[in-house]
Amino acid sequence: MSISGFPELLPTQRFAELAVLDRLRGVFELHGFAPIETPAVESLDQLLRKGEIDKEVYVLRRLQAEDSDTNDSGLGLHFDLTVPFARYVLEHAGHLEFPFRRYQIQKVWRGERPQTGRYREFTQADIDIVARDVLPFHHDVEIARVMAEALSALNFLPPLRLQVNNRRLIEGFYRGLGATDVPAVMRAIDKLDKLPAQAVATQLVDDAGLTAAQADQCLALAEIRSTDTSFVERVRALGVTHELLDTGLAELAAVLDGCAELTGGRVTVEADLRIARGLDYYTGTVFETRMSGYESLGSICSGGRYDALASDGKVTYPGVGISLGVTRLLLPLFADGVVSASRAVPSAVLVALPDEDARASSDGIAQALRARGIATEVAATPQKFGKQIRYAERRGIPFVWFPGGGGHAGHTVKDIRSGDQVDADPSSWTPPADDLRPQVTTKD
Amino acid sequence: MSISGFPELLPTQRFAELAVLDRLRGVFELHGFAPIETPAVESLDQLLRKGEIDKEVYVLRRLQAEDSDTNDSGLGLHFDLTVPFARYVLEHAGHLEFPFRRYQIQKVWRGERPQTGRYREFTQADIDIVARDVLPFHHDVEIARVMAEALSALNFLPPLRLQVNNRRLIEGFYRGLGATDVPAVMRAIDKLDKLPAQAVATQLVDDAGLTAAQADQCLALAEIRSTDTSFVERVRALGVTHELLDTGLAELAAVLDGCAELTGGRVTVEADLRIARGLDYYTGTVFETRMSGYESLGSICSGGRYDALASDGKVTYPGVGISLGVTRLLLPLFADGVVSASRAVPSAVLVALPDEDARASSDGIAQALRARGIATEVAATPQKFGKQIRYAERRGIPFVWFPGGGGHAGHTVKDIRSGDQVDADPSSWTPPADDLRPQVTTKD
Repeated sequence: MSISGFPELLPTQRFAELAVLDRLRGVFELHGFAPIETPAVESLDQLLRKGEIDKEVYVLRRLQAEDSDTNDSGLGLHFDLTVPFARYVLEHAGHLEFPFRRYQIQKVWRGERPQTGRYREFTQADIDIVARDVLPFHHDVEIARVMAEALSALNFLPPLRLQVNNRRLIEGFYRGLGATDVPAVMRAIDKLDKLPAQAVATQLVDDAGLTAAQADQCLALAEIRSTDTSFVERVRALGVTHELLDTGLAELAAVLDGCAELTGGRVTVEADLRIARGLDYYTGTVFETRMSGYESLGSICSGGRYDALASDGKVTYPGVGISLGVTRLLLPLFADGVVSASRAVPSAVLVALPDEDARASSDGIAQALRARGIATEVAATPQKFGKQIRYAERRGIPFVWFPGGGGHAGHTVKDIRSGDQVDADPSSWTPPADDLRPQVTTKD
Repeated sequence: MSISGFPELLPTQRFAELAVLDRLRGVFELHGFAPIETPAVESLDQLLRKGEIDKEVYVLRRLQAEDSDTNDSGLGLHFDLTVPFARYVLEHAGHLEFPFRRYQIQKVWRGERPQTGRYREFTQADIDIVARDVLPFHHDVEIARVMAEALSALNFLPPLRLQVNNRRLIEGFYRGLGATDVPAVMRAIDKLDKLPAQAVATQLVDDAGLTAAQADQCLALAEIRSTDTSFVERVRALGVTHELLDTGLAELAAVLDGCAELTGGRVTVEADLRIARGLDYYTGTVFETRMSGYESLGSICSGGRYDALASDGKVTYPGVGISLGVTRLLLPLFADGVVSASRAVPSAVLVALPDEDARASSDGIAQALRARGIATEVAATPQKFGKQIRYAERRGIPFVWFPGGGGHAGHTVKDIRSGDQVDADPSSWTPPADDLRPQVTTKD
């Protein structure tokens, strides 16, 4: 009875997802990002302001509204966390200190027809920095660093490439080349993921009005990538000059320099001059992220710089941010069995129950363990100990505690994986750190 | 531009809310409750199964659905976490181990006309234990203990009374008394919160068909409350006998005994024989919770035992659970300024920036502090130090770090509240534990 497009996890998977969310939150807070949460809904006016995604909005109506013709509430579920954040900044500007760093980890909804890899409900984790009037460029570097560090903390994921480009760089290049319809060039270049280079070249000529030689130059630019600043020299070698290009090259080089110490492990930060994010409203730095072995997912973490994240007509709020698609990232890994958790319950210990009269005593042992942070449950019924051990086994609980005669004496605890059984005191025994909580597990 | 009924918090309040959610989660997991999350939506069939709350459901439709007459998606936002959990149990029964303990902390939505104290979006924290066929009574005690412990962990709340009663007890009493329409008696008794006793007595006679003497007995029962098992004797003294009454008295006494060691601090567990929860489908233990000074909120944490939480026609799943209204509890405390957090950002330290060229060096200091779990930000611009200190002050950041000449020498850190400034090493200096993260604060 699952509803198509609305994923639902079993407890082991939810443990893994919570581990992801906790680690993200930990890194974001270490960098001074404050948590915010916005309602699931925004007014339709807010949601449709940019006009292009109206097909994807779920509108709310009260089931028993009185007037059936006008029963829409005027509210829709948010389809991203950027529109709500822009509204939040304007609404609460008087109570916020700028530059304002926020993270926001929430569900979003899109009323799409479901298809493989598309969800109608999914979790995103966004970080943004927004300022009043002017947002210094170094915050672009900061956003890249924080997300690279957050992705590195998810050390059970396949290798990731955080790809960075700069709209000023490519716009300056296209203008320096003589292109007049820059958006059309970006839209064509954006298709390099899906179309062969020759087809894109044709579009550059047919739709963007370039000569064949200009189109080749654009494709040559799009082929450049590097994990250090060597891309600058390769762009220069194409012989195009423009003031915007200079700015863009300097900015992109600064991001790569700023991330140099973070790259090379599980997360690689690289300049990739093919990244355009043609349909979005970015004005400088742009980000996308690919996961090794899961390239068909497209970008699982994207963002960039907006010169006007929000504006109330008097004050403009520039911003830079990046959004990680948590569901988009995790569900394929769950489906492939690549990522899971070590057990289905938080409990590290099951306290056995010799008979029903011993429940208070077994409860007391459990409370002593819990008081020291050890998640513990007590057997539900006083079955034979072999059955109680199998009860623990089915849940993945690693330890079974056998109560002693009373007080602190005579207790034993058994690691049911190894069969080792040792004397133990409920006021001092502690499981190995790895057994204390469910651990994220990977296939290899 | 806030949307009525959809509360939105500022960062300090969100820190306090997150502290609440983290502590609840911590206690629930210590007791072996596994986390689950269900989609925001259920099919309307599921949501309307019980038929009584249909006015409150928000239905979803795709904004640009093709057929405007049948454009409802057949989906509605869940209005509680019990209906989704019952569906989850049936859907995933083959993958769950019973008894299954789960906690679920999520938003729910009700399409009500907003009024004071009513929200259209709010967060609930539910715990339930569900079994296949039979759920031993001791799990009722367990649920009461776990929620009492969780509420005790919220040590910044006003005192709370967790009130327990038992449907078998009151039903047995009413039947022993000769009542034939027990639901009508419960509905009348349920109104004791809002109506004077005399008005309820009149309803007991007029609507439930009792004699005036029987009505007086019902009111006498409803007046009984105790924080120990002395209520048993007082009920017996009313002279009514019935087999169900005996069972109910024994069960309620067991809950009070089981919670004896937990009561008496900030949370009092008490038998309150007025609690009926007339409109809900409970069959044994019932819970409500009142917060001192906020009695007008009604019950902020309610639940009980269902003999059939879910059923697929072949197997029945009895359950016992309790649901804490997190938003309902916190928003009045925020509004009154009773609960808040110590700052608006996670940062414990602001690293000052002598000039823009020093940014890499200040970033390095920040990274050294973060590596040891100290949330740190770097000043946005190289203003005069006085301005940078005020920047920290406005955010509530307690410490400002002044970089030394290079390496580990010459650094100082200033507590901007006291003005104390000391030499410090970024690889070893640590703030006091209370300053490490934003703390929940209370008025007194």
